[in-house]
Amino acid sequence: MENLNCDILIIGGGPAGGVAAMTAKMNYPQKKVLVVREYKEQLVPCAIPYIFGETLGCSEKDLGSCAAAVEMGISTLLGEVRDIDLQGKIAFTTKEAIHFDKLIFATGSKPFVHDSLRHALALQGVFTVAKNKTLIDKTKAYIEDKQEIVVIGTGFIGIEMAMELIGDGKKVKVIGGSKHILKGAFDSEVALEAEKILLDSGIEYIGNDRVKEIVDFNGDNIANAVELKSGKIVNADAIILATGYKPNTQLAEKVGISLGHYGGIWVDEYMRTENHDIFAVGDCSARRDFITKEPSKVMLASTSSAEARVAGTSLYGIEYLKGFSGTIAIFSTMLGGVAFSSAGVTEEEAKNAGLDVVVGSFSGLNRHPATIPDAQRQFVKLVAMRNGGAIIGGQIIGGKETGEMINIVGTLIEAKFNVYQVMSMQVATQPMLTAAPTSYPITMAAVSIMGQLK
Amino acid sequence: MENLNCDILIIGGGPAGGVAAMTAKMNYPQKKVLVVREYKEQLVPCAIPYIFGETLGCSEKDLGSCAAAVEMGISTLLGEVRDIDLQGKIAFTTKEAIHFDKLIFATGSKPFVHDSLRHALALQGVFTVAKNKTLIDKTKAYIEDKQEIVVIGTGFIGIEMAMELIGDGKKVKVIGGSKHILKGAFDSEVALEAEKILLDSGIEYIGNDRVKEIVDFNGDNIANAVELKSGKIVNADAIILATGYKPNTQLAEKVGISLGHYGGIWVDEYMRTENHDIFAVGDCSARRDFITKEPSKVMLASTSSAEARVAGTSLYGIEYLKGFSGTIAIFSTMLGGVAFSSAGVTEEEAKNAGLDVVVGSFSGLNRHPATIPDAQRQFVKLVAMRNGGAIIGGQIIGGKETGEMINIVGTLIEAKFNVYQVMSMQVATQPMLTAAPTSYPITMAAVSIMGQLK
Repeated sequence: MENLNCDILIIGGGPAGGVAAMTAKMNYPQKKVLVVREYKEQLVPCAIPYIFGETLGCSEKDLGSCAAAVEMGISTLLGEVRDIDLQGKIAFTTKEAIHFDKLIFATGSKPFVHDSLRHALALQGVFTVAKNKTLIDKTKAYIEDKQEIVVIGTGFIGIEMAMELIGDGKKVKVIGGSKHILKGAFDSEVALEAEKILLDSGIEYIGNDRVKEIVDFNGDNIANAVELKSGKIVNADAIILATGYKPNTQLAEKVGISLGHYGGIWVDEYMRTENHDIFAVGDCSARRDFITKEPSKVMLASTSSAEARVAGTSLYGIEYLKGFSGTIAIFSTMLGGVAFSSAGVTEEEAKNAGLDVVVGSFSGLNRHPATIPDAQRQFVKLVAMRNGGAIIGGQIIGGKETGEMINIVGTLIEAKFNVYQVMSMQVATQPMLTAAPTSYPITMAAVSIMGQLK
Repeated sequence: MENLNCDILIIGGGPAGGVAAMTAKMNYPQKKVLVVREYKEQLVPCAIPYIFGETLGCSEKDLGSCAAAVEMGISTLLGEVRDIDLQGKIAFTTKEAIHFDKLIFATGSKPFVHDSLRHALALQGVFTVAKNKTLIDKTKAYIEDKQEIVVIGTGFIGIEMAMELIGDGKKVKVIGGSKHILKGAFDSEVALEAEKILLDSGIEYIGNDRVKEIVDFNGDNIANAVELKSGKIVNADAIILATGYKPNTQLAEKVGISLGHYGGIWVDEYMRTENHDIFAVGDCSARRDFITKEPSKVMLASTSSAEARVAGTSLYGIEYLKGFSGTIAIFSTMLGGVAFSSAGVTEEEAKNAGLDVVVGSFSGLNRHPATIPDAQRQFVKLVAMRNGGAIIGGQIIGGKETGEMINIVGTLIEAKFNVYQVMSMQVATQPMLTAAPTSYPITMAAVSIMGQLK
């Protein structure tokens, strides 16, 4: 067994691990930073669906690069940490004993598959959306000559996969337990618009139903249908389980590190575990929601990166006071030329969490005047606290600018701005790039809430 | 003379007047709101350049609409207020005596022309960029069959005009007093990138020079050249003076309302003049910069709209505490497929104003991974205070998302966020819509500043 030494050891080479390593190296340039990662080629996770359609077309176009990290002087080691001596500060792969001073878990997440379906993964033609190039390549190769693809799950990954597959000429059915798709991220009226695009593209949506069993009628271990709880049988040449992810904490559990809610590693606001030399960032860590303060299942590379920056600057003492507490659910997607995005809590989530909220919305165009050639409809909905008017959520439908516009809403939430401040917020508007100055939709949605609060 | 009565009288039907009227009506639904405006057809000011190229092609495609205002129950009157009895609260047009309770000046701005050139406006072929359909139509008709167009001025309007004109097949020269174009809005390295696009499009830029005289060689009152201070003679079939705007305060001055710096109507933070029944909003009001607190010449429909909302909710007492003080210069433009935007102060402005600042920048892509088909370079520069790290300015180059991304920077400035907060800011990222989560450029620029402050 080879002995290796480093100051800061990071387990995991995904977005959280990479950002943690680079931040640590930047902040402590004299420290030796080592990243242990399992895969030589690391997929960019959020672009995996685009491997399945013409957007990217192959996994080789979805590879992350370590070039920046290596250039900074960060070491990387291919391998899997199988055990850790927390007391002695040594991590063990099959071949190496790695001595460290500080340790960051960035072990990410694994596809979540419901217990009742786990055995079906043994069948040919049943796949999860793993963040693993070999498995994704295998999936893509399998469905290459197949026609009927069934996607189980109506989150972003499932819907983006379905849209890519239909664009690629497949026959696609999506199965979901909710009445509408993307219900976790959007209120019904927004989800419904996304669903319309899905249906218009030719995808069939079977909602309000759940999978009872994945079946191989011929008993040949090749899946060829999905049996639903309703009794319905849906034929399938291939089945993709896009039913979410769960924290990958096998190693942490094994070495006795405490877990938090939803199986993530328990961490404080500076991403420290109970042992202040051990940190966890990204999908493997347990999270609380910024607004409701309830345990959060949100897994996003962007918030993981934010956590990784907090950890990477707090390894040897807290240098920067953390200004916020909790994870803001903040995401966007693009379906058939229309972007959908959300930040904070939806109206439905807020009400379920017992928050007394008022909502306002505005529908306009993303250019001005309306005659600008690429003008497209833009819809903004804001959710605010009835008392004080603090913005706690927003949803936007529109053109590609929506991807950055939701980050304005995210900033408003993080800055704890209220609708009265948003009313007179100073923004840039330009005919070719934005809505009109007189009816900037974020402002107008805030004004609508003000009207109701008066 | 006809007697009219209203509660709230707004003089001016541009963006500021319109928003003031609608906000007032929304906030005081029982009050009678009347807008007096001069033009039946009101141009959308920021899109005027696009009338001159194929983007819009005609002024009919650049008309604002009063439909929303009328629907809300706001009255409008075509006419020009020529005098006001402040004591008696009566405004006079040629035909009407309008009795009011509260008055809002939203008289906008007029093209600024240097004294030495004002007489040249009498020549045929010399035009300003007035926010007036008749004059714009006249200009467009005149240049229709002309070849060589000279644009004087290197602000947004001048540059956008020049780009539209060259796209329309004209031969275009731009004359400016600075070494580079757009110097007011951008630091040199950013302005230089904009200038490269200008030059690549075939426009000739004559910088570091000023106009001495506009000449009609034939003595026929038809302008055919511009003589520069350097002695250079530039031939021209038509000359467009895009040398900025000045507050339109003729009426306010006449009736004895105090003016502030740069000739704008003096107002407090709630847009009240010394007489608290009289307000002024938009380009006709005097402004201070949000950061430097110095008098500001910035004129933007977006900040005018923000001011109009403040006035519209403060007419009968202050209902909403204003959370900020001063105008944030915040704008964007699009030149040849590349968007440029700026918020707050530039590095050069900050230094000139005596602010002790640190800057950081990051260059990446606006999609991730780099293989996403429409990926485009994205550059973000941030300006922060050395002490405390508060963000006070930002400049962005990129795709169309830049138009909304600068509004994130604007929000950070307004929220007084510092680089340490931006480091762990939670944003949404998506392959088709934004940069990578691991290297979101606003965050990365902040991280670069943190490194320098350490």
